[in-house]
Amino acid sequence: MLKDKNCLEDIVFDSEYKDSDIAIVGIAFDGTCSYKPGARFAPQAIRNDLYGLEAYSPYLDKDLSDYNICDLGDIELSFGNTILSLKTIKQEIKSILDDNKKTFVIGGEHLISCPIIENYADKYEDLVVIQFDAHTDLREDYLGEKLSHATVMRLVHNKLGDGRIFQFGIRSGTREEFAFANKHTHFCKFDLETLNEAIKEIGNRPVYVTMDLDVLDPSIFCGTGTPEAGGITFKELMDGIILLNGLNIVGADIVELSPHYDQSGVSTAVACKVMRELLLAMA
Amino acid sequence: MLKDKNCLEDIVFDSEYKDSDIAIVGIAFDGTCSYKPGARFAPQAIRNDLYGLEAYSPYLDKDLSDYNICDLGDIELSFGNTILSLKTIKQEIKSILDDNKKTFVIGGEHLISCPIIENYADKYEDLVVIQFDAHTDLREDYLGEKLSHATVMRLVHNKLGDGRIFQFGIRSGTREEFAFANKHTHFCKFDLETLNEAIKEIGNRPVYVTMDLDVLDPSIFCGTGTPEAGGITFKELMDGIILLNGLNIVGADIVELSPHYDQSGVSTAVACKVMRELLLAMA
Amino acid sequence: MLKDKNCLEDIVFDSEYKDSDIAIVGIAFDGTCSYKPGARFAPQAIRNDLYGLEAYSPYLDKDLSDYNICDLGDIELSFGNTILSLKTIKQEIKSILDDNKKTFVIGGEHLISCPIIENYADKYEDLVVIQFDAHTDLREDYLGEKLSHATVMRLVHNKLGDGRIFQFGIRSGTREEFAFANKHTHFCKFDLETLNEAIKEIGNRPVYVTMDLDVLDPSIFCGTGTPEAGGITFKELMDGIILLNGLNIVGADIVELSPHYDQSGVSTAVACKVMRELLLAMA
Amino acid sequence: MLKDKNCLEDIVFDSEYKDSDIAIVGIAFDGTCSYKPGARFAPQAIRNDLYGLEAYSPYLDKDLSDYNICDLGDIELSFGNTILSLKTIKQEIKSILDDNKKTFVIGGEHLISCPIIENYADKYEDLVVIQFDAHTDLREDYLGEKLSHATVMRLVHNKLGDGRIFQFGIRSGTREEFAFANKHTHFCKFDLETLNEAIKEIGNRPVYVTMDLDVLDPSIFCGTGTPEAGGITFKELMDGIILLNGLNIVGADIVELSPHYDQSGVSTAVACKVMRELLLAMA
Amino acid sequence: MLKDKNCLEDIVFDSEYKDSDIAIVGIAFDGTCSYKPGARFAPQAIRNDLYGLEAYSPYLDKDLSDYNICDLGDIELSFGNTILSLKTIKQEIKSILDDNKKTFVIGGEHLISCPIIENYADKYEDLVVIQFDAHTDLREDYLGEKLSHATVMRLVHNKLGDGRIFQFGIRSGTREEFAFANKHTHFCKFDLETLNEAIKEIGNRPVYVTMDLDVLDPSIFCGTGTPEAGGITFKELMDGIILLNGLNIVGADIVELSPHYDQSGVSTAVACKVMRELLLAMA
Amino acid sequence: MLKDKNCLEDIVFDSEYKDSDIAIVGIAFDGTCSYKPGARFAPQAIRNDLYGLEAYSPYLDKDLSDYNICDLGDIELSFGNTILSLKTIKQEIKSILDDNKKTFVIGGEHLISCPIIENYADKYEDLVVIQFDAHTDLREDYLGEKLSHATVMRLVHNKLGDGRIFQFGIRSGTREEFAFANKHTHFCKFDLETLNEAIKEIGNRPVYVTMDLDVLDPSIFCGTGTPEAGGITFKELMDGIILLNGLNIVGADIVELSPHYDQSGVSTAVACKVMRELLLAMA
Repeated sequence: MLKDKNCLEDIVFDSEYKDSDIAIVGIAFDGTCSYKPGARFAPQAIRNDLYGLEAYSPYLDKDLSDYNICDLGDIELSFGNTILSLKTIKQEIKSILDDNKKTFVIGGEHLISCPIIENYADKYEDLVVIQFDAHTDLREDYLGEKLSHATVMRLVHNKLGDGRIFQFGIRSGTREEFAFANKHTHFCKFDLETLNEAIKEIGNRPVYVTMDLDVLDPSIFCGTGTPEAGGITFKELMDGIILLNGLNIVGADIVELSPHYDQSGVSTAVACKVMRELLLAMA
Repeated sequence: MLKDKNCLEDIVFDSEYKDSDIAIVGIAFDGTCSYKPGARFAPQAIRNDLYGLEAYSPYLDKDLSDYNICDLGDIELSFGNTILSLKTIKQEIKSILDDNKKTFVIGGEHLISCPIIENYADKYEDLVVIQFDAHTDLREDYLGEKLSHATVMRLVHNKLGDGRIFQFGIRSGTREEFAFANKHTHFCKFDLETLNEAIKEIGNRPVYVTMDLDVLDPSIFCGTGTPEAGGITFKELMDGIILLNGLNIVGADIVELSPHYDQSGVSTAVACKVMRELLLAMA
Repeated sequence: MLKDKNCLEDIVFDSEYKDSDIAIVGIAFDGTCSYKPGARFAPQAIRNDLYGLEAYSPYLDKDLSDYNICDLGDIELSFGNTILSLKTIKQEIKSILDDNKKTFVIGGEHLISCPIIENYADKYEDLVVIQFDAHTDLREDYLGEKLSHATVMRLVHNKLGDGRIFQFGIRSGTREEFAFANKHTHFCKFDLETLNEAIKEIGNRPVYVTMDLDVLDPSIFCGTGTPEAGGITFKELMDGIILLNGLNIVGADIVELSPHYDQSGVSTAVACKVMRELLLAMA
Repeated sequence: MLKDKNCLEDIVFDSEYKDSDIAIVGIAFDGTCSYKPGARFAPQAIRNDLYGLEAYSPYLDKDLSDYNICDLGDIELSFGNTILSLKTIKQEIKSILDDNKKTFVIGGEHLISCPIIENYADKYEDLVVIQFDAHTDLREDYLGEKLSHATVMRLVHNKLGDGRIFQFGIRSGTREEFAFANKHTHFCKFDLETLNEAIKEIGNRPVYVTMDLDVLDPSIFCGTGTPEAGGITFKELMDGIILLNGLNIVGADIVELSPHYDQSGVSTAVACKVMRELLLAMA
Repeated sequence: MLKDKNCLEDIVFDSEYKDSDIAIVGIAFDGTCSYKPGARFAPQAIRNDLYGLEAYSPYLDKDLSDYNICDLGDIELSFGNTILSLKTIKQEIKSILDDNKKTFVIGGEHLISCPIIENYADKYEDLVVIQFDAHTDLREDYLGEKLSHATVMRLVHNKLGDGRIFQFGIRSGTREEFAFANKHTHFCKFDLETLNEAIKEIGNRPVYVTMDLDVLDPSIFCGTGTPEAGGITFKELMDGIILLNGLNIVGADIVELSPHYDQSGVSTAVACKVMRELLLAMA
Repeated sequence: MLKDKNCLEDIVFDSEYKDSDIAIVGIAFDGTCSYKPGARFAPQAIRNDLYGLEAYSPYLDKDLSDYNICDLGDIELSFGNTILSLKTIKQEIKSILDDNKKTFVIGGEHLISCPIIENYADKYEDLVVIQFDAHTDLREDYLGEKLSHATVMRLVHNKLGDGRIFQFGIRSGTREEFAFANKHTHFCKFDLETLNEAIKEIGNRPVYVTMDLDVLDPSIFCGTGTPEAGGITFKELMDGIILLNGLNIVGADIVELSPHYDQSGVSTAVACKVMRELLLAMA
């Protein structure tokens, strides 16, 4: 028999939209990337590779086949027009939230998290954001632009205010950004050391997880635009996600995979596994 | 609006099977490859890249959007079991021919052409085969095996007999294979020089075109298991396909793209364009 | 003795600006690239490689050391803001033209030619444009955007009108674009066949040469975002530039080198050589 | 003087077969690989690289030049015929065991360990198998095939029965495979934590070590068909081999290096070092 | 405005030589490399990448913009003439030391440290050398040559005598080299465990730091000629440099980056960060 | 049965030295390479790949299995010592010539041809040299060095004098080198146009062929240190070798393959085929 052109061996996100609790959306946008672009290729690369991944997680002892998840494909965007792109993203995500579904977004560069989180902040007034990242992303502007992958968390801070953002794994930024973080966010430099106490503090509040995959050390994740040595290991991230498992996660994204920069394919495989674990933690 | 996960920008093969004249089938088999494997990745790579290709051909001044073509996806095969795989291929292709459709197969290694052509030979008793290839593929056995990418045209000759195979672009083989070809096939060494007279000789007879893409020079097509310098240029191949345009082509395949061996992506782009032109010549 | 950090072995563009006839400018912009980005890396890659190139051309029997050329470095641009970037480019190039110098621009994607040519059209009312390219670039909009690498020559046509654009080497586009080209431009499909008669027709009029390097066959130039098989060879391009040598070339650019996609480094080496020859033809 | 074409700088396996205690054999088989093939290239890649490796191990404080080891080259196999290949492997290894030598096999994919271990089980009735691996390899069949890299340890279990297989580093498999492992093998998830107690339990019994190199984290070993993040570090593996040093190791293999997928060459260098240490632990 | 062709976004070494405390010098020499050459490309690769790195170090809480550092470019050398090259290096470095500046050298292969350290030993009679390295580099000769990357620390030992060299991270060498190290140098196998007590022992004496980047594990630094698994992590190196911060460092080098062997670019990014931290520790 | 570790499938150079007419020698030297090194890897890469090549040439209709050829392996050289290396090469080649055998050398960089040709000039007083090359290689010195890949033919000219060197395919050099060539050598710019008349002029004189593989266009041979666009095609080279077939070739070399720079492997495959054809032309 002919197999389906897009059949996934083990992992299948083939629930009907109406029956789904989580909707996967790809956003192939990397327009403000200032150094090495290519995050636009991540959604396709991840979908191509997911078929080889087992649905079962030995970390969480959960299996994706037990949950209702659908994949809506990518949001169509205009190349070269950042403002219009962000507007389109905001509308598309809003319509899914209005249907009372959680979104899991595959980026794209980190700026895309801004319109998504704005939607979530509108829906959940006590929302907190957990950010895994190598960079503070707290610049006021970057090379003159206010809308940038390097300003995204500053924009989110503008929306949410002090004390609502928890930053982990940060190891790169200007002196000013580090000073800002120390004042305005829950800030954990270099690793996930304070994650456990953050989780206690968060309690039952709705959580959005934004996972800039460059939080991982480039030894395991070199396929990203600005790899920063000194990151966390995959095992540390898995331990972190096991902790997240008890939270009330209402949305999540994984961003900044730039698959062409890792010809071994390991970075894409890592992104797929992080996606599986985050989905299971949300489900 | 969300765009479809598999939408093709310009080229779309989204006709219903029942309305289609041509059915595209992928066969991701490279089990007898003796040197560098990877032709198994070709169907996915080609489908990923087709979306960037214009439907319009300036060579043939035809447009794919004017024809009814469907894509049936890949045939599911057992890894490591050559005999069973060939049997499955034969059955699947037969069922499509029984529905009076033409098949266009994306390989995979060249051995897959054997069960396909056997079906065609059963259906069309005056079938002729036009082979574009760097290699004669006329060995009796290869490293002891009778079923091999290096024996495929010998197997086809066993089925069809003398004078039914037209070979073009051949530049590699043993002394014995060249001697066999000179005796038993229409044999054009190095290039397509005699293609025009072959076409006159063939006339209205049904034609199956088997396109081993390594007929192209490795300068334009290095993504293949056994690249052979001294091949034809892309322009020479286009000129050849323009000649084929007048024939009664009942089936075709493109084989031996091994996309991972060309990191620039050019080989896959070339395969897509050859596919567009061959489809237009068949349509 | 310590050598200069940026010393160029054979090729040096170290004239003072005020003494220079030609000013080299880099424009590292690839913001509307819809497929594989990376043309932003071209100016740096070309400058790194130029030092290994001989200043002497055996094609034109001229030597770069005989001319006054300076390199002004790159124009600083905002990432993610296309409109502002084009405006900045326009201003910078204008100020050089106002100083009565010719510009030689290293792109970047093809869209950057639009503000440059607009400046030239303002300065020379009988300007003609010679475009070497694989693509017509004549779309009205591309995925909804009017400012795009795929619309650049349509924008130039809006400025110049019919019969002022000479297109060579074109082999990819929609049916509509080919129809438009046949009507509104001097259009040479596939190769440079009509270049000689174009040159006669142009006579002494001021000429701007826009060289989309993907006019070259991907066999010799795979380092570009959308490689199109069936292009011209390097020798054909050299023969073309020898013909250009007699024209009144007032400005030129080379665009769409995306150096990361060619790991052998050949594409960058080719771009350097084309740059040497075009500069010598202009000088 | 001319140096020998195959001379190894530091490491030389040039004992006569009759004087050797250990015989090295290459098995370039990857016929059932379902995803990324290429383990067939491992024996040649490892032999090419060994010459640069010092014979002295600072981990074990032993030197390969103190032992009698010969290299018999590769076993000749038929491409595309799994059953015949396994039969040939079984015969070749048997004849070496009959000569009372230990074998050290360089794979090839993991399935090759099955016929080898069957020989060892026939010779040593109290044989135990220590498996280092990212995957359980305990499927009953894989995509319909009973002979597969994904079923190899199930086949070995069929031969040896419960409690004779010690699995370490496992982090990927279906829910059913993990359940089977928990019941029927000594099973150490994720790492080598229980290796020390396993070694005490094994005592003087003859041990066969099958080292699927994907047990290592992809950060240090990306050159394999199905890299699985979350693996052990090289130092953890060295610590493990230091523990193995006291065991009665009668045979060993290293499998699943696929050198082409790691262009830095690190994976092959790692495989060479693991080979040196395992040989020294056996010797 | 046009930006400077060599402008560095965040990191700029643009002090005047006369005002500088530290002079950066590139030495693109890899002439005795016996295996994989390419360290010659390191100075250019590092300079290209530095512009993307923040001047601020969260490890040391220092900022490069607070110090006076100049970049003198590369020393011009003769290809293929080792003796002459070493002589030139010695002269150039001497003239900088005579101006009472510290040097920070970007290699090149490790042999270049020999003439540099000889200068320092002439200037500071109680000089100690701290070497981070995967290899002992203590051979008397290598393949017959006394001047080699594999003999460099033996040559330094010839100059300095016993007890003046502190070696860290060593994990590869012949049995004889390890024996020599145990007798004649402060020798810390595999890691940085004894760095803290070494620092106490060194006290206020002038220190030269020679950083062979292959001390890092290949997982984070594969872009080097002879990668050796089992190295230290980036975090361990940062912890080491934090310890160095209190020493009287009078000169330093980073050697053996071979950027082409790491296509992801991570190795160059790592070298840049190590350079920033070492410079800050020196400043 | 175990196959030999170094068995060559189709091409075997296993004659005894005493019975051989041609001795193959590898010279893995690239010490004066000024730009991208790596020609040292060519002998191993070529030997690894030869096994996949058919012994039969359809170009010359000859078969390598009909001739007595042995492979002596590589000459052992000192890294970093150019003068000593050239002396060793000279002695080794001399001893083979003294045994009245022809040599076929696999380089290595082009400088190695100098000591080889000096031997031949001593033996054959009417020797002529046919050089295929992209570069004149006629500099008096290069960056101050008289012994360099860029001076090799000037050194040969010093030995042989005017009119004894025939240069083909040259397309790169300084103005001075081109002037020198026009005066002192038989000089064919860009292609092989005058090869036929050269062959007539040479007649029965003994010929040494030095094949710098960069004479080929980089489209088919990018694996070389200084690729120069505008080269000859593989077919043009084959046509040239067919012409050489009638000459009295007493020795030959192929140089400047740098296999790591072509990850597709095509350049090495091309070098193997050129080697087969040149050997057949000599035999």
